[in-house]
Amino acid sequence: MAERDEAAPIRVALLGCGTVGGNVLRLVTTHAEELAAQVGRPIELVGVAVRSLDEVPAGMDPTLFTDDAASLVARDGLDIAIELIGGTEVAGRLVRSAIAHGVSVVTANKALLGAHGDALFAAADAAGVDLYYEAAVAGAIPIIRPLRESLVGDQVTTVMGIVNGTTNYILDKMTSEQLSFEQALAQAQRLGLAEADPTADVEGFDAASKAAILASLSFHTWVSADQVYREGITHLTPDDIRAAERAGCVLKLLAVTQLLDDGRVSARVHPAMVPRTHPLASVSGAYNAIFLLAREADRLMFLGPGAGGAPTASAVVGDLVTVARNRRRGVASPSRVAAASRAVAPMGEVSSHYHLRFVVADEPGILASVAAVFAAHRVSVRTVNQSAPEGTPEAVAQLSLMTHLAREADVQACLADLDGSPFLRGPITLIRVEGV
Amino acid sequence: MAERDEAAPIRVALLGCGTVGGNVLRLVTTHAEELAAQVGRPIELVGVAVRSLDEVPAGMDPTLFTDDAASLVARDGLDIAIELIGGTEVAGRLVRSAIAHGVSVVTANKALLGAHGDALFAAADAAGVDLYYEAAVAGAIPIIRPLRESLVGDQVTTVMGIVNGTTNYILDKMTSEQLSFEQALAQAQRLGLAEADPTADVEGFDAASKAAILASLSFHTWVSADQVYREGITHLTPDDIRAAERAGCVLKLLAVTQLLDDGRVSARVHPAMVPRTHPLASVSGAYNAIFLLAREADRLMFLGPGAGGAPTASAVVGDLVTVARNRRRGVASPSRVAAASRAVAPMGEVSSHYHLRFVVADEPGILASVAAVFAAHRVSVRTVNQSAPEGTPEAVAQLSLMTHLAREADVQACLADLDGSPFLRGPITLIRVEGV
Repeated sequence: MAERDEAAPIRVALLGCGTVGGNVLRLVTTHAEELAAQVGRPIELVGVAVRSLDEVPAGMDPTLFTDDAASLVARDGLDIAIELIGGTEVAGRLVRSAIAHGVSVVTANKALLGAHGDALFAAADAAGVDLYYEAAVAGAIPIIRPLRESLVGDQVTTVMGIVNGTTNYILDKMTSEQLSFEQALAQAQRLGLAEADPTADVEGFDAASKAAILASLSFHTWVSADQVYREGITHLTPDDIRAAERAGCVLKLLAVTQLLDDGRVSARVHPAMVPRTHPLASVSGAYNAIFLLAREADRLMFLGPGAGGAPTASAVVGDLVTVARNRRRGVASPSRVAAASRAVAPMGEVSSHYHLRFVVADEPGILASVAAVFAAHRVSVRTVNQSAPEGTPEAVAQLSLMTHLAREADVQACLADLDGSPFLRGPITLIRVEGV
Repeated sequence: MAERDEAAPIRVALLGCGTVGGNVLRLVTTHAEELAAQVGRPIELVGVAVRSLDEVPAGMDPTLFTDDAASLVARDGLDIAIELIGGTEVAGRLVRSAIAHGVSVVTANKALLGAHGDALFAAADAAGVDLYYEAAVAGAIPIIRPLRESLVGDQVTTVMGIVNGTTNYILDKMTSEQLSFEQALAQAQRLGLAEADPTADVEGFDAASKAAILASLSFHTWVSADQVYREGITHLTPDDIRAAERAGCVLKLLAVTQLLDDGRVSARVHPAMVPRTHPLASVSGAYNAIFLLAREADRLMFLGPGAGGAPTASAVVGDLVTVARNRRRGVASPSRVAAASRAVAPMGEVSSHYHLRFVVADEPGILASVAAVFAAHRVSVRTVNQSAPEGTPEAVAQLSLMTHLAREADVQACLADLDGSPFLRGPITLIRVEGV
């Protein structure tokens, strides 16, 4: 970084001026004095890159805006680029260019970091610039900073998060109003809480990017989004919700990452039953929460809005101040994401608790047959519940099992063995249980 | 700070080796390699100050220990002092001496910061050294760092915390097991959750120190512990617990600090009814939680263990790493606690919601008399509930009122006017309501 005049402003470029970018623009312009006091130098916004110059917000100086983001990032004397474009292509090129030009970066782009974080962090560390991304996981909740700084003297062992507000809202509605997935999704879309194409949310892609970032940060290793086991919520039914309720649980889409005993990492996104007494169980609506276990600090939870222009902008501006202070002092904070090199354990080798539900013929000896299959695969059953579902013509029984901690592969082997059994009257439903 | 060899270790002195200090000692010695990687230099523990050399833990190098803390702090080339002695006298002298010697300080001492934080922060800023104190408020919960860094681009407006695990445990027991205050306190003492002299906890002194720190940090001004309005929990009865339950609330001892519309600050510690649906309501046992409102970030909550050797040590070591990194790079983070200068509003000028409960003669016209007093003082009543308490010989009625937002002084004026009324059959009970 070149030596510069002590009073020279910190020069900032804003890339993208949508919901979050517009709020960042508002905060940076209306809080200029306070930000200058915090940083110890004025923040000078040198340019805002937009897709089209038709997008310039009313009342703003039009000369500040450009549709040539690439030139803005390469502008001489630029200190910090705030990337709020999203996606991996254009945004990736701009972030790489910024770093190559010695410019520090603040981004809220989970997809970009989840896919290419390793290369970007390494490039930033090599260039001696900051790459901050508090807003990329769980919106305004300060989770990156605690993991990156407060807990560095500790060993995080598990991070479990509700990191997607859309799916949390849908599951909430399915629970409180007995809606089907399709009905709840339609409601979320009407309220603007789900996109017209909801795939990224309801299939768990968004949560998987965040799980990858959380895993990388918590365990100082690189985990990419495509290494995260992923299962969405589209197949969940009101029967699953009721089964969770009967088990004293609520259904949540969780991003889970764990340090395994053998030093490997598990990273996964899937629906999970969470006991009603667990702090995550009461996180409702579009809120996000991160629950973590650490060797020394025990149990911590962070709760807050997971999205929204103003909350996300708050996190971005918090990063901006830290990066600007670093810039003023000529220092940068290394990401250390690649300090350890840990393998990601395949899902089959991960252990969890399982809730299994299946309809069987109501005949003698069936429970014994089922129990024998579980015993053969060393899956220990914790509770069994047999009930007679209403309104079924045939004499059938519904069997619910909760297992003790069991290996995924062993549980899947049980399901494979049971599949096609003459006494089965429908498919077997498997839902993992976390936080027990 | 003198220039030093790039590979020279960061020299650290530990002051105090009790529950927290012992855990810090363990973490620093057993995690030496990881900490060196995080800091970019080895951490060298140059000495541990204990009250008496009889206290040296088994298996530790005895030459490391000293009962002369003053000389240890003044030792040549010391980088960081970790103060875990507690109290204001000895600890205060040592922290001031460390700062005067150009040594950065990490402390968990809420009493010291609550009483003398302004002078200490100013001295640290003037000396260009760090003064970090994550462990001073809410143990292992990373709350100082988010307030100091993540939210600097935002405006925090309210912080409400359950910051004392002892009183939270006592109130929990009074609620779940219908115990009296005295019974619940005795149980907490048996479990080691309350001291033999519980005054600092149950009278709210401990919480007031933390409220002062939170207010100072959130609003960039100096609030000392003796400016915090303080009311403990010793007067609470099972009747109060039941009244809270009937109002759909739970009773918590809260530390509350708010930025008022006129720019002044309110800082107070008192029991409060919290609606059962509020995130703070479900914080149970010895856990702590900080709930905050910010203009942009909306609602955030942080939950975790409020005390305990290992969790508190985790927070101390997190600070140690940050301060050591700063030290290595020759920088320090100013506290900015005194950036704004805000007055603390007297309790009478603070507005809240109030729950009032009193027993009156069961005669016609009394509700009208009571209502007239509230109207005269412009206190707007939100709900009224009149019931006949069981087992009373005389014909009496129990009256419960919940007010809308009202000025404390106006509510107190109502109570003064009602005091001595011929229809009153006992004292009036006032409990504030927060989080509505």
